[in-house]
Amino acid sequence: MNPVLDGIAPSIIRAINARKRPGDVDLGMGEPTLRLDPRPFEAATAWVREHGCPYTPNAGSAELRARIAAYHAFADRGAAENVCVTVGSEEALYLALKAVVDPARDEVLIVEPCYLAYPKLCVLEGIRHRTVAMDPEDGFRPDAARVLKAMRPETRMIVLNSPNNPTGRVWPEAELRALADGLGDRPGPVWVLSDEVYRELYFTDAPPVSISALWPHSLVAGSLSKSNALTGLRLGWLLGPADAVAAATRVHQLVNTAASTFSQMVGMEVFAEAGNLAAHRPHYAERRALLAGWMGEHGLDCLPPEGAFYCMVRLPERWAADSLGAAEALLERHRVVTTPGIAFGASGEGWLRLSWVAEPDALRTGIARIADFFHG
Amino acid sequence: MNPVLDGIAPSIIRAINARKRPGDVDLGMGEPTLRLDPRPFEAATAWVREHGCPYTPNAGSAELRARIAAYHAFADRGAAENVCVTVGSEEALYLALKAVVDPARDEVLIVEPCYLAYPKLCVLEGIRHRTVAMDPEDGFRPDAARVLKAMRPETRMIVLNSPNNPTGRVWPEAELRALADGLGDRPGPVWVLSDEVYRELYFTDAPPVSISALWPHSLVAGSLSKSNALTGLRLGWLLGPADAVAAATRVHQLVNTAASTFSQMVGMEVFAEAGNLAAHRPHYAERRALLAGWMGEHGLDCLPPEGAFYCMVRLPERWAADSLGAAEALLERHRVVTTPGIAFGASGEGWLRLSWVAEPDALRTGIARIADFFHG
Repeated sequence: MNPVLDGIAPSIIRAINARKRPGDVDLGMGEPTLRLDPRPFEAATAWVREHGCPYTPNAGSAELRARIAAYHAFADRGAAENVCVTVGSEEALYLALKAVVDPARDEVLIVEPCYLAYPKLCVLEGIRHRTVAMDPEDGFRPDAARVLKAMRPETRMIVLNSPNNPTGRVWPEAELRALADGLGDRPGPVWVLSDEVYRELYFTDAPPVSISALWPHSLVAGSLSKSNALTGLRLGWLLGPADAVAAATRVHQLVNTAASTFSQMVGMEVFAEAGNLAAHRPHYAERRALLAGWMGEHGLDCLPPEGAFYCMVRLPERWAADSLGAAEALLERHRVVTTPGIAFGASGEGWLRLSWVAEPDALRTGIARIADFFHG
Repeated sequence: MNPVLDGIAPSIIRAINARKRPGDVDLGMGEPTLRLDPRPFEAATAWVREHGCPYTPNAGSAELRARIAAYHAFADRGAAENVCVTVGSEEALYLALKAVVDPARDEVLIVEPCYLAYPKLCVLEGIRHRTVAMDPEDGFRPDAARVLKAMRPETRMIVLNSPNNPTGRVWPEAELRALADGLGDRPGPVWVLSDEVYRELYFTDAPPVSISALWPHSLVAGSLSKSNALTGLRLGWLLGPADAVAAATRVHQLVNTAASTFSQMVGMEVFAEAGNLAAHRPHYAERRALLAGWMGEHGLDCLPPEGAFYCMVRLPERWAADSLGAAEALLERHRVVTTPGIAFGASGEGWLRLSWVAEPDALRTGIARIADFFHG
C-alpha cells in the first residue's frame, strides 16, 4: 500500500457518527435535510430518454460551464473556459491543489478552523502545508493581517472558506481587500483557493464577496450540494483563470474523465434561473432565528452564524481542552451527536460545532440537552 | 502550475477528433451509440422524489456494492467490503494505482498496446513504469511469458486489459494461469490491475476469465459505460481484497467524496438482474459479423476481435512507420476518422484502430474508403 495513506488521520466526524444510535438527536451532519425540487431530475430524465447518456467533454458541458461562469459574474472569468465541472466541490479542491501547486517547491497555507480535507489533500499529494488560525477570543473573525503575517517566501497558495465551516464566519470585503493588497505586495503570484460551497447561505445584509472579485490569482470551489440540498448529485465546479482551469481539467480527465452527464443536466436546469440557487435561503434564515432564540433561552455561549448552517458553541471550562471527550460524553449521556471543535484543527479545541439543518423539534431538544450537559 | 503536467502528452485521439468535420465517417470514438434503456433512470427519479439525493457512504451504497460483488461471483471477494463504487472505471484505475503502489519504491509494468491513461496516470502520480508489448506479428496475442520476462525485482503491479482496447484480444484462461503461476514463484505480492470494462462484450465461446479467479492480489476495474451504453453515467467500481479496497476508498473519499447517488440508483436497477449487463451483446455480435464480411470483401488485413468493439487493421507498408500520418491523410482525403495505433503505445505503430460502434451504413462506407486509401 502507498505509505502516504498512513499519514492521513481517520475522520473524527466519522468516528463520532459511527457511535450514533437510533433515536439519538443528530446535530452532527453537514447535509441539508430539506426536500429537493424533483423537476430538474424529471427534465434530465426526459433529456436522457431522447439523447442517451453520452460523455460530455472532460471539463463538462460547454453550456453548463457558461451558465456557471455567468452566474458568478466576475468580469475577468465569465466564460465557459473559466469553469471545469467537477464531482462536487471536493474534487474541485483536489484539482486546484494538484494542478496549481508544485509539491517540490511550494507551500500551502490553510486558514483555520477549517474542513480538514484541506490538510489531508495536501498530505495525499505530498504538499507541504501549515495552518494559520483565526483568533477564538475574537470569535474566529477573518483577519487578513494574521494570514499575511504567517506567510513564508515559499507560500504559493492560501486556502480559505467563506462562509466558513465550522465557524459560520463570512470574510468581509475589507479583509479580503486587505488580503489581496498584501498579496499584491509580494513577489510572484500567490494563489488563493476559496471554498465557497456555502456561498448562497448567508445571513448578512449583502451576499458574501468573493476574493475572485479582488485578486486575479484565485480559484473558487463551488457546488450545488448545500444551496440546493443536492449533496448526492456530486456536481461542483472549479472557477478561475483559463490557464489554471485548463491544467485542472487535465488532471480531472485522468482521474475520472468527466462529471456525470445526468448530474450536469440537472445542473443545467438549476442554473437556468439564478434564483433557483437562492431558493433555500429563507428556510435557513428562519431556522437560524429559532436557533438564536433557543441558544439565548438556555444561556449557551455561541457565535451567531453569518453564513452556512453551523454554530460554534463554547465548551464549559472543564471541557476546554477536550472537545472530543465532551462530544463523546454528550453522545453517551445525553444522546446528542455534535462535532468536536478539534475536528477542524487545533484552534477549534474548546468548542463544539452544531449543525442546525435538523428538524426544529430535534434542534430544540438537542440544544436543551446540551445545556443540561454544560450546566449539569 | 504543477510541472508533472508537462510530462503528460496531449491525447492523440483528441487531436484527431478535433479535426473531424461535419459529414465525416466516425470510426474513431470508443462510445456506444446504442440507445439505452430509460427505465432505470425513471426508477432512480422516483427514488429521488421520495428520498431526496443524499450522500451515500464514501465507498457507495452497501446494497449496490453487494450486488456488484455478487455479480462478479469470486469466492474470496464476494461481499460489499470488496467493492468501492467509483466515478467510472477511470477513477477505479486511478485509485488502484494511487492506493496500492508506493511511488518511492515500486514499479508498474503495463501490458501494451493499451489505453494510454495507464502510463499517464503513472506520470501524474510520479510512479515509475515501463510497458511490455505483446507481439504484433503474433496478432498481439496475450502472452504471460513475455510479461513475466519483462518483470524486475521492483515490479509490484502489472496492468492488463481484457478484452483489450485496441486489439480486441481476450486473455485466455491458460495464459492468465501461467501469469498467476509465474507471479506465485516471485517474492512478495505482485498486484495485477485488470481493466475489465469490456467484460460483457465478448465473441468467444465462453465469457472472459478474470485474473481475479486465479490470483488473490488482483484488482478489477469495471463500469457500466460500455456494457450498457452508459458512458455519461460515470458509474464504475474497483473490486478486490477488502484491505486494498479500504485503502482505495480513503483516496476516493478525499478526491470526490462518493459517486453520484442518482447514478448509483440507476446502477442498482441495472444490477437487479445479471442479464441486464449482457443485454447489448447480441447487437455487437451482429455488428461484428457485418464488419468481418466487409473487411473480407475489401481485402483488409485485420485482427478479428474476440471482445470489445474495436478492430486493428494493418497499414500498408508505406505507412508502417507513421500511423498518425496515415490517420491524418485518411481523414483529410477520405473523410474517415480512425485512431492511429501509436495512440496505444509504440507497439501499435503500423496499425489503425477502427471502432465499429458506428451505424452499419457508416461502417460500410468507412471500410470502403479505407480500402480505397490503402489500395489507391
